[in-house]
Order: sequence, then C-alpha cells, then structure tokens
Amino acid sequence: MARQERAIRTRRAVLEAAAEVFAEFGYEAATITMILDRAGVKKGALYFHFASKEELALGVLEHAVTEPPPEQLLKLQTAVDMGLVLAYRLPREPLLRASARLAADQNARHFFGEPWNEWVRVMTTQLTEAKERGEVLPYVDATATAEMLVGSFNGIQMLSQAVCQMADLETRISRMYDLTLPAIAAPAILGQIDTSPARGLALYEQQRKELAESPDSNDSEDGEDAQDRLSA
Amino acid sequence: MARQERAIRTRRAVLEAAAEVFAEFGYEAATITMILDRAGVKKGALYFHFASKEELALGVLEHAVTEPPPEQLLKLQTAVDMGLVLAYRLPREPLLRASARLAADQNARHFFGEPWNEWVRVMTTQLTEAKERGEVLPYVDATATAEMLVGSFNGIQMLSQAVCQMADLETRISRMYDLTLPAIAAPAILGQIDTSPARGLALYEQQRKELAESPDSNDSEDGEDAQDRLSA
Repeated sequence: MARQERAIRTRRAVLEAAAEVFAEFGYEAATITMILDRAGVKKGALYFHFASKEELALGVLEHAVTEPPPEQLLKLQTAVDMGLVLAYRLPREPLLRASARLAADQNARHFFGEPWNEWVRVMTTQLTEAKERGEVLPYVDATATAEMLVGSFNGIQMLSQAVCQMADLETRISRMYDLTLPAIAAPAILGQIDTSPARGLALYEQQRKELAESPDSNDSEDGEDAQDRLSA
Repeated sequence: MARQERAIRTRRAVLEAAAEVFAEFGYEAATITMILDRAGVKKGALYFHFASKEELALGVLEHAVTEPPPEQLLKLQTAVDMGLVLAYRLPREPLLRASARLAADQNARHFFGEPWNEWVRVMTTQLTEAKERGEVLPYVDATATAEMLVGSFNGIQMLSQAVCQMADLETRISRMYDLTLPAIAAPAILGQIDTSPARGLALYEQQRKELAESPDSNDSEDGEDAQDRLSA
C-alpha cells in the first residue's frame, strides 16, 4: 500500500472513531485517548493529522456533508426529501450523528458558529423557489418556515434518540411533514407530496446508484470512491 | 430570622445558583465551586442541603414545575397555551432553562430518564380530551402529535437560544402552532384558536393574580409564598 494511501486511510479511521466518540459522549466529555482506543492507531499517527480535539471536531463537521437529494418535478418535494433522507441516514452514520450533536452543543458553539446554518440556508432557497412556482401558499415566510422545520427536526431527533436510539426517526420525521405541510403547501399540490417514511431509503439508494454510475465517480480529489463521498 | 426560614432561603439560593450554572454550562462542565461562587454561600451550607452535583440537578428538575395554564372553553386552546406560557417563561427563569438543558443532555440521561416525559403526558391528555370534544380532527393520533410538538418546541428553543438567547422564542413558538394547527384542529374551530406571541405573558400574569388572590396562597407546605410556587 502506497504511503499516501495509508495516510488517507488512517485519517479516515481517526475521523470515524472521533465521530463515534463525539456522537456518544458529546464534545466536552470526549477525550483524545477514547478516540485513539476506538481508532486503534498510535498517538503520533493521530497528531500527524489533527493537532487537537477542536481540529478533530472541525474535521468531523467538514466531512458530514450531505449531497442534495435527486431533483423532483415539485420543488417542495425536494425540500421534504432532504429531511426524509437525513432521517434515514442519521441513525446509520456516526459522522452525521456526531455533527448533529456537536452543532447542538452550547459549549462547543464558539468553534462552530450558529447551528444548522447551512441547512436553514438550503431549505430557505428550496422553499423560496417552491413559492415562486406557486407550490407554497403565498403568505408563507420561507426563512421563518425553514428555521421552524430545521429546529423541529433536531428536537424530534433528540427525542427519538432518547426513546429508542433513533430507531423510529423516519416515522417521526414523516409525521412532522404531515403535520406541517397543510399550512405550507398550496392546496392543489398538497396531496401530491410524498411524505412516507420509506422514501428516505429509496432516495438514498437512487443517489448511490447514480453516483456509482457517473463518469467521474473514481475521480475525486483525494482518491476516495463514490461510496465514501456519499457517506462522508 | 428563624433558623428554619434561613435554611429555606439558603436552599433556594443554592438551587437558583445551580440552575444558572447548569443552564449556562450544562451538567458535565458545571462544578460545585461555580455554584458556591454564584450562590455566595459556604461549602458546608451547600452540602447540608445537597450531597452532590447529581442531587443539585435533581433538585433543579424537581422545582422546575409549571402550573397548568388557566382552563379555556376550547381544550385545544389550553394545549396551545401551555407552550405559549413556557415560551414566555423559559428565557426569564433560570430554573426552567436549566431543566430544559438537563433534560436534553444525553450524558445526564441515566439520572433523569426520558426527557420531557411529563410534558408529553400532559399534552397527550389535553389533545385526547380535545379530540373527544370534536375539536381535533378524528384521524389525529394524540400521543404521536404531542411527542412531535414537544420535540419541535425543544429544537426550536435550542435554535432561538443559539441565535439570540431566546429573545424571539415567543414568536417562534407562535409560528410553530400556526404551522401545525391546520393539520390538527377541526376546521370549525381552527380560526378560534389564539396563537399570538403576546398571549404567554397575558396568561402568566393572570395565573399569578389568581394564585395571589386564592385563599390558600399562604398555605404551601414549606412556607414559600404564591409567587415562589409559580416561579419554582
């Protein structure tokens, strides 16, 4: 194995171990020793890539990026799909789970800024476009609604985590949309929006397939394959 | 000042200081020393009332009880009022704010059990009664809806805390109800439910007035007056 490839794998193993530890214990209680134990690497190898716990947390947040879900005919469906895919992936991916927990951590906020900023921004754009197309009721405030949905998603996710380790998150998020869409969607399209809990998995598999088939899927900068890019 | 009265005041001062520290730093990062500094009491006085940080946290949770809002003609209005009053009080009362933060703390969960249990229970009862009266749509699941609203409230509260120290919480919670009631309330009563942000303050003042005027307002077990009971 080439030295560069080994370095990439070590970095990845350390990040994944850090994600598991942050997701389980939070930023404050997490220690470098816990992360070393979980990753099974030597101290020097970890410090070669990350100088501190803070850098590890920033690395986790940086890698917890989600691809936008496939475009749909109705823009409002795309906004709903974002939440449904995330509800499928959060219980399954430590990197995402850790970043959700870090973003919600009041003590870690001075590192990471306002939580869920990027997510609110993306959803505001989607709702604004949906409104321009007449899919959203004219008096709906796109920013305020996006903030309400993102805040709600995170509170619901915390409750699901406490009750059953997020095993029912997809059902709960599906219900969140059922209970909010009647006040958001134009009546003519309300019945056409699919909020079923199984939709997250279906969309995620479609995304993976499309990425694997795309011509540049083996062409990412640091040699990670398409599967890695998606789960990162 | 009688010895008993002094002990009650010290206990109260320690609990309020603990609440401020837990609200600001979370359970993990809070220390007894921080609480002593904030309360301005001696170590011995604190340990006379509370043997550990855990006992302090349990004391805070125990005192952060909210009276139910005044009964309304529509039961669904009472369920909405509970959230509106809490949105008014949370930014103003360290005991409530601390208990919200402790309940959401994954690391402290083994002490405190599932978060927001009691709150979900009360709201489920209110929604069930509202449904029996025909105020709620027949296909609405009372428990699932209560869990969704309580989870959403807490996520929205965290976002408001991060963005502006909860200065806009009443507006955000008012909006949460505006965006969910159309999927919950029977059409005939939907327009009669008041979700205005100013309602929390008005109801809270009404509660305080009624408690102060009630004949047994000076008759609580441990000698706290009506104001204390309410803000506790």
